[in-house]
Amino acid sequence: MVKTTSKISVPGFLANGVSVGIKGDDQKDLGLIYSTVPAKVAALFTKNTFKAAPVLIDTERIKRGIAQAIITNSGCANAATGKEGIQDALAVSSAAARQLKIPEEHLLVCSTGVIGKRLPVKKIETGIGKLVKGLHEDGIEDAEAAMMTTDKYPKIAIRKGIVGAKDITICGIAKGAGMIEPNMATLLTYVMTDALIDAKALNTVFHQVIDSTFNAVSVDGCMSTNDTAIILANGLAGNNPLERAQARLQRFREMLTDVLAELSQAVVQDGEGATKFITILVDGAKSKSDARRVAYAVANSNLVKTAFFGEDPNWGRIIAAIGSSGIPLEKEKISLSIGNMTVFSQDTPAHITLSKLKEIFQESKIEVRVGLGGGDKSYCVYTSDLSYDYVKINADYST
Amino acid sequence: MVKTTSKISVPGFLANGVSVGIKGDDQKDLGLIYSTVPAKVAALFTKNTFKAAPVLIDTERIKRGIAQAIITNSGCANAATGKEGIQDALAVSSAAARQLKIPEEHLLVCSTGVIGKRLPVKKIETGIGKLVKGLHEDGIEDAEAAMMTTDKYPKIAIRKGIVGAKDITICGIAKGAGMIEPNMATLLTYVMTDALIDAKALNTVFHQVIDSTFNAVSVDGCMSTNDTAIILANGLAGNNPLERAQARLQRFREMLTDVLAELSQAVVQDGEGATKFITILVDGAKSKSDARRVAYAVANSNLVKTAFFGEDPNWGRIIAAIGSSGIPLEKEKISLSIGNMTVFSQDTPAHITLSKLKEIFQESKIEVRVGLGGGDKSYCVYTSDLSYDYVKINADYST
Repeated sequence: MVKTTSKISVPGFLANGVSVGIKGDDQKDLGLIYSTVPAKVAALFTKNTFKAAPVLIDTERIKRGIAQAIITNSGCANAATGKEGIQDALAVSSAAARQLKIPEEHLLVCSTGVIGKRLPVKKIETGIGKLVKGLHEDGIEDAEAAMMTTDKYPKIAIRKGIVGAKDITICGIAKGAGMIEPNMATLLTYVMTDALIDAKALNTVFHQVIDSTFNAVSVDGCMSTNDTAIILANGLAGNNPLERAQARLQRFREMLTDVLAELSQAVVQDGEGATKFITILVDGAKSKSDARRVAYAVANSNLVKTAFFGEDPNWGRIIAAIGSSGIPLEKEKISLSIGNMTVFSQDTPAHITLSKLKEIFQESKIEVRVGLGGGDKSYCVYTSDLSYDYVKINADYST
Repeated sequence: MVKTTSKISVPGFLANGVSVGIKGDDQKDLGLIYSTVPAKVAALFTKNTFKAAPVLIDTERIKRGIAQAIITNSGCANAATGKEGIQDALAVSSAAARQLKIPEEHLLVCSTGVIGKRLPVKKIETGIGKLVKGLHEDGIEDAEAAMMTTDKYPKIAIRKGIVGAKDITICGIAKGAGMIEPNMATLLTYVMTDALIDAKALNTVFHQVIDSTFNAVSVDGCMSTNDTAIILANGLAGNNPLERAQARLQRFREMLTDVLAELSQAVVQDGEGATKFITILVDGAKSKSDARRVAYAVANSNLVKTAFFGEDPNWGRIIAAIGSSGIPLEKEKISLSIGNMTVFSQDTPAHITLSKLKEIFQESKIEVRVGLGGGDKSYCVYTSDLSYDYVKINADYST
């Protein structure tokens, strides 16, 4: 498996990103990904009750198992926009499918940005010609740029490797920044691959890998209305087909995990205002679900997050967060380590040198390990700290 | 029922607060409340797994239904301190009971401050003599001052009224500020009354009133290790005894509700860094528990809280928070109003003037109403915004 950043392209995929004036200042805000042949598709969407209009449309379309393009706008989420929002998204979809000369139901639509605002359909329709005309092999970076909102940098990960006797490529892109506690996906992430893979196997593997990557990160504990993760597999590598329960499917899974782990961790690192990358590893749980609840109780505690931002070695807040998780815990068995230092075990604080612990808090990557001592299940969550800049960015986002 | 702030005292109660050097700078940090006769007691404590040492001790002691004094220190929570923490709290309790000449099991101990630090027992023991000697009728304000941590102002509420043919007084004090999402109590709140009341009735009424007041506020969604709410009723008013299912008990309940509502709202208003007081009222729910989940999903959303701080009328974030609550909702029936303006109903944004909505966001008190349209149950939560100052206060709390 080779990690390469020299040329970002996937055989059979064209892409582009243009500015149509939704975000203003000539920033790219409309992106397109297009496979030259119909591709197998799998996708996961937010569990929010107020699913955005494009999410509702895509949820139906991916049921066919085939898609060929994804059009994305940033600057407007087209969520909480009712029937008019659906009509707006369909208008965009119809215009794009016509230009691309593909069946409309093979086109997926995505939006990200402010919730509750109508989509500027006219601007988008006007720009689609230019968008389609400019599709090119190296266009993935342009498509990525077009879906950024408060992201500080683009998030692209690519892996190449031999699977089923052929070279295959897997490339993923993501946008993140805020409103990040994905539940089945992140805000937006798309994966393009030329691997030849059975539809059921693709669906199973994609769900599993999202669950261990994007569903294990949190920036602010807020689940979006637009979370969408899509994978398109166009089969052009001509490898021996990947089906369930095959060794070569495992190889594909590993490559996909690598791509999505890199992207999901980049989303945390670029979390709004983030200054630290914090890993919360909980083990010794009776169930994975218990481990997950404890991990998120720590990851989403504003008091824990502000202590990390302030580099204040106030480990007692982590203990309080563990204890507030609402699951039955045997406190005598619980241990807490930060970096390589055990600070609490057997219901007693360890004798530590506080200045040494402060040094650990001053690092940019910090690992918190919680041992529950009650079983053999574990869960790992990646999160960021809570800084002035998070407040600043979010205090005047829409106006 | 008369609200008075002229003289803060309750017949038969003495109190005091002194500085013993836990917080430094001669700030009061050791407080005592004492009833001249043994009082009926009821109490609620945090549900955190890591209950502080004093919470574990008090949980046992209140089972007798009788208590006569509460000693409280600030500056150290005596939580996550194991067996040594219990011994420390018992040493304080023993010294105080000796000085007060009351049975040790009639004394309750409370602590608040940094978690994971040993209690400075020597300092406290040295100060107890002065503390007890200085007990006085008007000492409630001194006792309150001694339990403040990051609180900007003291929280005291008092009501007098005729119940059971006699004048009775109910006075409550509270400390709050951060780590505020009480689960059965707030950080610390004590109520003193001279009402004569049956032990069972006292327990029932206190639980009910705490549930509708302190258990309905949230500053940062963080549950503490030390949450404690205690009521002492010494019976010296000599009223006709209050028992269950009596009309005069209802009068007592109203007065108690008034006191605890004022205190709990003061805790939110003085929430760390708070600049706004936000009421989240959810109605039309199938169950109270559903209404509560939606209310807290909104109240604890960092994105909603930062939008209020920034006075950014980004109502879509409230919709996203409602939708993320994880309960089944019929989105067509949901309505959202902010102040007197309906911004969303029938799955469609209302036609509003954004500048008018911004004016509502600029007020210091804001009411958010969420109608779920699926039943007749409701819940109301009080919360604050999330500001730079919250981050600042909590970024270097312990060091």
